[in-house]
Formats: sequence, C-alpha cells, structure tokens
Amino acid sequence: METELNIIEEPDLEDPVLIEGLPGIGNVGRIAAEYMIKHLDTKKFAELYSSHFMPIVLIDDDEVSLLKFEFYYWNNDDGKDLIFLIGDSQAGKEGSSGHFDVAEKVLDLAEKFNVSRIITLGGYSTGDIGEEMEEGPEVLGAVTHSEMIDEFKDSGINFEDTDSNIGMIVGGTGLLLGMAKKRGMEGLCLMGETAGFPILTDPKSAEGVVEIVSDILDIGIPLEDMEEKVEEMEDFLNKLEGLQKKSMKQMEGGDDEEEKLRYIG
Amino acid sequence: METELNIIEEPDLEDPVLIEGLPGIGNVGRIAAEYMIKHLDTKKFAELYSSHFMPIVLIDDDEVSLLKFEFYYWNNDDGKDLIFLIGDSQAGKEGSSGHFDVAEKVLDLAEKFNVSRIITLGGYSTGDIGEEMEEGPEVLGAVTHSEMIDEFKDSGINFEDTDSNIGMIVGGTGLLLGMAKKRGMEGLCLMGETAGFPILTDPKSAEGVVEIVSDILDIGIPLEDMEEKVEEMEDFLNKLEGLQKKSMKQMEGGDDEEEKLRYIG
Amino acid sequence: METELNIIEEPDLEDPVLIEGLPGIGNVGRIAAEYMIKHLDTKKFAELYSSHFMPIVLIDDDEVSLLKFEFYYWNNDDGKDLIFLIGDSQAGKEGSSGHFDVAEKVLDLAEKFNVSRIITLGGYSTGDIGEEMEEGPEVLGAVTHSEMIDEFKDSGINFEDTDSNIGMIVGGTGLLLGMAKKRGMEGLCLMGETAGFPILTDPKSAEGVVEIVSDILDIGIPLEDMEEKVEEMEDFLNKLEGLQKKSMKQMEGGDDEEEKLRYIG
Amino acid sequence: METELNIIEEPDLEDPVLIEGLPGIGNVGRIAAEYMIKHLDTKKFAELYSSHFMPIVLIDDDEVSLLKFEFYYWNNDDGKDLIFLIGDSQAGKEGSSGHFDVAEKVLDLAEKFNVSRIITLGGYSTGDIGEEMEEGPEVLGAVTHSEMIDEFKDSGINFEDTDSNIGMIVGGTGLLLGMAKKRGMEGLCLMGETAGFPILTDPKSAEGVVEIVSDILDIGIPLEDMEEKVEEMEDFLNKLEGLQKKSMKQMEGGDDEEEKLRYIG
Repeated sequence: METELNIIEEPDLEDPVLIEGLPGIGNVGRIAAEYMIKHLDTKKFAELYSSHFMPIVLIDDDEVSLLKFEFYYWNNDDGKDLIFLIGDSQAGKEGSSGHFDVAEKVLDLAEKFNVSRIITLGGYSTGDIGEEMEEGPEVLGAVTHSEMIDEFKDSGINFEDTDSNIGMIVGGTGLLLGMAKKRGMEGLCLMGETAGFPILTDPKSAEGVVEIVSDILDIGIPLEDMEEKVEEMEDFLNKLEGLQKKSMKQMEGGDDEEEKLRYIG
Repeated sequence: METELNIIEEPDLEDPVLIEGLPGIGNVGRIAAEYMIKHLDTKKFAELYSSHFMPIVLIDDDEVSLLKFEFYYWNNDDGKDLIFLIGDSQAGKEGSSGHFDVAEKVLDLAEKFNVSRIITLGGYSTGDIGEEMEEGPEVLGAVTHSEMIDEFKDSGINFEDTDSNIGMIVGGTGLLLGMAKKRGMEGLCLMGETAGFPILTDPKSAEGVVEIVSDILDIGIPLEDMEEKVEEMEDFLNKLEGLQKKSMKQMEGGDDEEEKLRYIG
Repeated sequence: METELNIIEEPDLEDPVLIEGLPGIGNVGRIAAEYMIKHLDTKKFAELYSSHFMPIVLIDDDEVSLLKFEFYYWNNDDGKDLIFLIGDSQAGKEGSSGHFDVAEKVLDLAEKFNVSRIITLGGYSTGDIGEEMEEGPEVLGAVTHSEMIDEFKDSGINFEDTDSNIGMIVGGTGLLLGMAKKRGMEGLCLMGETAGFPILTDPKSAEGVVEIVSDILDIGIPLEDMEEKVEEMEDFLNKLEGLQKKSMKQMEGGDDEEEKLRYIG
Repeated sequence: METELNIIEEPDLEDPVLIEGLPGIGNVGRIAAEYMIKHLDTKKFAELYSSHFMPIVLIDDDEVSLLKFEFYYWNNDDGKDLIFLIGDSQAGKEGSSGHFDVAEKVLDLAEKFNVSRIITLGGYSTGDIGEEMEEGPEVLGAVTHSEMIDEFKDSGINFEDTDSNIGMIVGGTGLLLGMAKKRGMEGLCLMGETAGFPILTDPKSAEGVVEIVSDILDIGIPLEDMEEKVEEMEDFLNKLEGLQKKSMKQMEGGDDEEEKLRYIG
C-alpha cells in the first residue's frame, strides 16, 4: 500500500489549524491532542494507513487493528476550525524514508482542507531524573518563520532555549513542520519539558502544552479533568508504550532476544 | 520481482476459508497447517515468491529452491471449502514494508477465490521455561470484529487474556488479519501457548490449535498421528529453525560473526 | 539507477554456459572465475552497476571506479561457449531486496544470450581452524534439478553432505540458481571447502573448484600457475577483503567506531 | 518526495567546475567549500531535498528547516566559472541506495549547466591522535582518469598513497566521482589529512585543501581569515557534529538509549 489516506467524511472547514500529537517522549503530544479531542465536540473524518508503520496489529476492545493515524475535526463557532491528528505510532524506523512519505500524505490532507498553519505537539526530555521543576515544566517552541515568534511573545513559550539547547527535532513532530514550510505553510512546534526516563507517559507535561494551545487559539479548555481523562486512556497508553519499547529495540539493533521472540507470531 | 503470485491451477471453490500457518514461535502455525494439509486430501494450486524474503535458497530433496509460500485447496463435501497457506519464512525483516506487500498479495488471492474469512495460526510464548501446564497449553484468540467472539464462546478459545496480556501481534499472523479487516473480510487468529524457549518446534501446542480448528470448522481431523507426521517434517523443520535463527541474528544486528561468515556464498 | 546492465559488445555465442564467481567465503568463487578468465582467451563484453551495491568507490590503477559486475565471453571451438561473471561485491546488505534485483538483471543477460545452464562458484567454511584436510579440500555441490546429480556422479563433487550439512545457501551464489530455476534454466553450485577464518582468500580451495569446472566442461585448464596468477591479483583481493570487512561490520550493526569514521568521506 | 532539485535561478555559466563539500571526516570538505563560498562573491541558485536524508529538522536562526544541499555559483572573470555544493548531511545511512539517488540528482544539475569536471573535497583520518605533522597535513588525491594525474604533478597533491593506503572512498565524496565518470565527466577528489578523532572539525586540514583548490584553479583565495570565518560557522558546525553523531549511532545500531530517547519528538 505504501501510505493510504481514507477520508470518511468531507467536513466543511474554514481556514482550519491542524494540531498534531503522535506518541513520543513522555507521550506528551499524543496525550495533549487526545485530551483536546475528548474535551471538544470533535468528530473523526479520516484515517491514514502505511506500510511504513511497524508490521504489527494492536488488540484493543477485543479487536485487532492495523496501526493508524486518525483525523478529527471541530467546528469552532468563535474562531478558527480545528483538525486534530493523533497516531498509534511514529512512521517506521528512524532513518527510513517512511517518515517523509507519511508526512507528505498528512500535508496532502492539510492542503485539501486549506490548512495554512500547523501546530505539532511533543515532549522534550531534560534527561534529569527527579529534577525539581518548581514552576512546573516549561514548554519550548520552534517555528517555521522567525517573524512568528513575536506573535507568541506573551504566551509563555520558551523559544530562546530551543535554538541553543535542542538544535534539532527528530521524527514526525519536526519533519511535518519542515515539509509544511516547503509547501508555504506556517508551523509551530510545542515541546513539553519532561523530567526523568522519557518513555514514561507524563500527563503533567501534556497539561502545560494544552494550556498554551488553549490560550493561543483562545478555545478555553479547562484542565481540571486532565488526570481523570488520562486514566481512561491508560490501558491504550500502555500498549503504545509497549510499541515504543519494541520500536526502540529495533533501532538499537536489539539485545533482548527473549523479549523479541515472544512477540513474533 | 517484489512479490509474485503464481497460480498453477484454478480450483472451483465455494465460499472458502483461508487458513494460514507461517514459521514463528514454536513453529506452531506452520506445523498445525502442514499437518492438516497432509491429513486432508489437499492439492497445491499456487505459489508466492518475494524479493522481501531473505536472499537465501533452501537445499531440500537434493534441489535448491527459493523461499516461498504455498497454497493448497481442499474441497469439503460436507461444508466450507478450505485454502491452506504455508510458508518457508516470515516476510523480510521486522520493520520493513515487505510484510505489507506480501500480505497484500495473499489477500489478492483470497479475494480472487471469494474468501470472506481468514484463520491465522501462530504461537504465543509465555516465556516460562519448564512451566507446568497441567491442562495442556491454552489457545488464545483474537478477532477482527468483536461480535465474532460470541460465535466461538463454547470452543475453548481464550479471548480474555489476549487483549490484556498480549496487546499486539507482530508479523504476518497479525498483519494479515488487520489488512483483511480493511478489505471487509473477517478474521480469527489462534495462538497456541508454548512454554520455554520459543524457537523450538512445539508439536504439542500445534495439536491444541488443530483441535480447535477441526472443531470450529467441523472437519474431524484426528490427532493420533500428529507426532508421527511431525517427525516426517523434522528434517525440513530443522532447516526452518536454521532460517529463523539467521533471521533473528539479522534483527539483532548480529553478534556471532563466525556463524554469519560461514553462510555467505 | 537501481540496477543497470551496459552491454559493450554483442558476441555471437552458441548455447553458452554462464559461470559466476563473486567475492565471498575465502573469495573462492571470485578467484576461481578470475583465474579462468585470465587463462582462457576471454573478452569483456558487459558491465552491471547497481545502487544496491555499497556507496563506495574503489581506487585501483590510480583511478576511482564504482563497484561493478563484469561479464566476459569465450568462444570454445571444441564445445560450449562460456560467459564468465565476476564482481567486486555481493549485492547490498543481507536481507535487502537488492540481491534479487541484481540477480534478475544477470538472468536478463543470460536469457538474451540463450544461456540454459548456470554454474555458480563459492566457498564453504567448515569453521575448523587448522583442520587437517589430507586429501585436499572437498567441493560440495547443489543443483536446481535432482536428476542432474546423475550426470556428475563421476566428477568427485560431493552432493550428499550439501543437503544434510549445509541446508541453505546465502547470497548471490545460491539466489542466482533459485531464480534461474524459476525461469526454466538449470543450475549447478560448486562450493570449495575452506578451513579456518573464512574471510581469508583461499587459492587452494579455488584450485579444487577450477579443477572440477575444467573437468565437467572438458576445457583443460592447467593448474600449475594458479599460485602465480593469484599473486598478481593480490593487491585487488586485499581491497575486496577490505570491502567485505566493511560489509560485515554493517551487517553486524558495527562496533568499531574508529574504523568506520576513518572511511566516511 | 525521494530527491527533489529546486532551481531558484538559472545563472549563465561557462564551462563551470563543480566543487563539492559535504560534512564528513573533520568536516574538512564542508568547511573548505563554505569558506570559498563566503570569500568569493557567490550566489545561491539551487537547493536539493531528499527523503533519503535523516528525518530531522535543524533549528537555526530561530527557524526549523529540513536538511538540504545548497548550490552557489560564482562568475569568474579571469577563468572558469564555479559551482559550489555544500550540504547539511551525507545522504541517508551507509548501505542504503539513497546515496546513489542523491548523487544522480546532483549530476543532473551538473549536466544541465555543462559541468565537465567535478572536484570533491573531504577528509582522511590517519587515526593517530596527537601525531606530529611538521610540514602541515598532506592532501591526498584521487582521479577518475589516470592521465589527469600528470596535470597536477606540481600541485603538491599526494596521489601515490591514495591507491595503496586508502584503496576505497566511502559516501558522497567518492560516489559522486564514480558516477560522474560513468556519465563521461572528469573528477578529482581532494582529501585533507586529519589527525586524531575524526568527528572533530579540523580547520587546519581544510586550509590545506583550500590552498590547493585556489592554486589549481588560479583563483587566489587568501587563507589569513580562515580561522575567523570558521569561528563564525561554529554554532552551525556544532549542530552538524550533533547530526553526525546521531548518524553514527544509527549506523552502529546504537547503544545510548537515553541519548536517543531525548531526541524523538
């Protein structure tokens, strides 16, 4: 198949913003996007399948399913309409061209619905386990066009440290912006700081990201029930963590033979 | 070539069920499927070759042959006709898109013969060496559509533990179901529990799987000569185990240089 | 490019036999084929380039060149004409589909010149360092069609141990036969036994292989100057060994960072 | 996308020479080419993007950008016009066919502007840390056609040691020459010797390379401000070094899980 975009319904959207959240560090992007999907009155309208995803099916709610990306829309009466993209997995292994192919198809959908701005959500691990973050985790930002930074100057997004400390973004979260820029779209990346071992789901960091998205889009998403909502997602998040660990093992060349053998059908 | 389907004969089949058994954990799926092929009056009617298989030829019965999948059919006078698929190998390395390409071609054949239900057979390793399994190994199940579970409620298949304990199926056994579902077919995966080191062929686990297939399809396959039949397959199964070990080494990045060098022509 | 066949001259060949020798275990196949090319009055008539080869250029005779396969022909007044194929490298990394693509192109050339039989030459490592081989190294054989074995029953080729002890052939030497068989051609694989660490060039093993080829094709190639001819090839063979070591490192995932860094341009 | 060449402006160039400098050992090629671009009155006229590059965006000058190659031209009133190519990265992982695809596109541009000679710049690590190089680092050379060596006999380029000591060139620096030769172009590779750990940027070695290029093309580039110019590039060079380390890790199969996890978006 390579990469396949299945549009289930053609919603009527005005100048929408696309918000992406894939699994990754602390699952920050995925949780933040899924929380907004659950909170707002969104509706699923498209799916993306790809042979660049891992050759794995998830078993959930007693059914097997291919790994996929899902697109939801929200008609915002008071402002810009929104498209949310969440995924079960990053595209393929690091270093493969799969990442590019999948991002192209996402941008094809974005162009079809006249998206001119993309916000990608992810996590950034400081690598410090147990570090004190008294003022809560920071949210680092990066943009496709430097003149955008001015627009967000009162949002609390930290742009300064992104350039000097991070220097590069790996995987879908960054690539989608880089490729959007090449197509003439604007993009903003928000990365919630997460302390400690980065594969552990970090709802606190996601909260910081949602707060900023809610603020800059002026959509008033309350954060009280974040913890509860994340608990509801927990069973599925555990599966994603399992997937990510498998994926890590593959990248590393793998050293846990027993573990691997237990999975191969 | 990529993936090539060679249909040798076009059998007349009515609403057939496709039963798949590839090498994998404990070789449970391959043994179970091959045992049924040998027991029933089946006939080979198609082969599948793919450049996604490992660049290896097997030497068997004094002849070299490419790795391949083989399709057999059985005209069942008292019920649904059957197509069996057995293979020498899983498709390519984990993580490659080869798995998807090969599964697509298998489903092309399935559609051509109006298959509406697929049963994939595999093993599941508990990872417990020498574990006591007093009541014999369990058979875990997974389905493409949750409403199918009801149909199998008296079959002895354990669906409960699949969702919570397994969570995902890796490789052809799972992928074939996920992709069949996307084409509107129904699928059932049966995984025989196998204790101990998973690469060792486990006929006992395969017996449990055959028993359930025989029961749900009502085809009355006796199990007395299972052990004898598996002994006949032994020389070939050893070669498959060799292949699987090589394949594992590749996935791991490999650490046994000597071993590897001995094979490269 | 993928894989590109450049035919320099179209020789007039009658029912030729194709003899292949690629680098591999003990470089047995490559040395044996190159020795025959140098001894007989052969002429180069085609080259094959592929993006499945490693992204490396060799520096030889003060010039850089891409890795390539070379085809030579020999008009045999007393029997079947011959085509020789030697290569600088096996195709790509193990596990990739590159091996298949390159073999297809070789067979395209074979079909164009009406080749109906292919002889592939390689080595087989016993893994025993310093093992005594009093009667000289054996030559193991494998065929595409079991009825061919009878034809070679007095040739001294050992077919018995191939099936039981080897069981599979990895890389071009085997794959070319498996794919030739699928196109309706006959094939014979000759593997010279080589003791010790397999990456070391083993002219003694190659001698045994040349002796058998000379005998079954009745082309009377003397072996006296084998050692001398191999010495002439030595500088180039050292480069091939360097290539093979690099290739091994890649397959292994690599552990010698220093070594690797020294090569990257 | 695969590989995409975006020509921004079509300069009028007479029989230009293409000079390439990619990141690599000691970043010698990249620094040397970038220094000449900064010193001469060059203008950017084309970019190349490829899905064979790593799925990473760089954050520089407060903006995210895909990895890319950049082409600059210089109209030389007193001699041949020049095209400079610098890149953020080598193409893809070693062993992939990405290297070939990217090189083909570079040569497509070269042919379009009637380039008949290519000079590729790189480094060569002696592997000796702290080695004394009293007469400054040597510059080793390799050519596509041995008769070119005579032309450079008074240039101070060392051709003798290239054949015997190096024997092969890995990656874009070599491949571009090998493929140019196949298209009928001439090529020269200049490799600045660099002592010590090769991933560390080595401006001294680059100086030796620039001196020779300036000399053989007679373009009179002074070397006094080399150190200062390299300091200006430092922030970006640090990012390239980060990229190269990541790339190394991938080639090695990776062993620093923490490090890797910190990057995945």
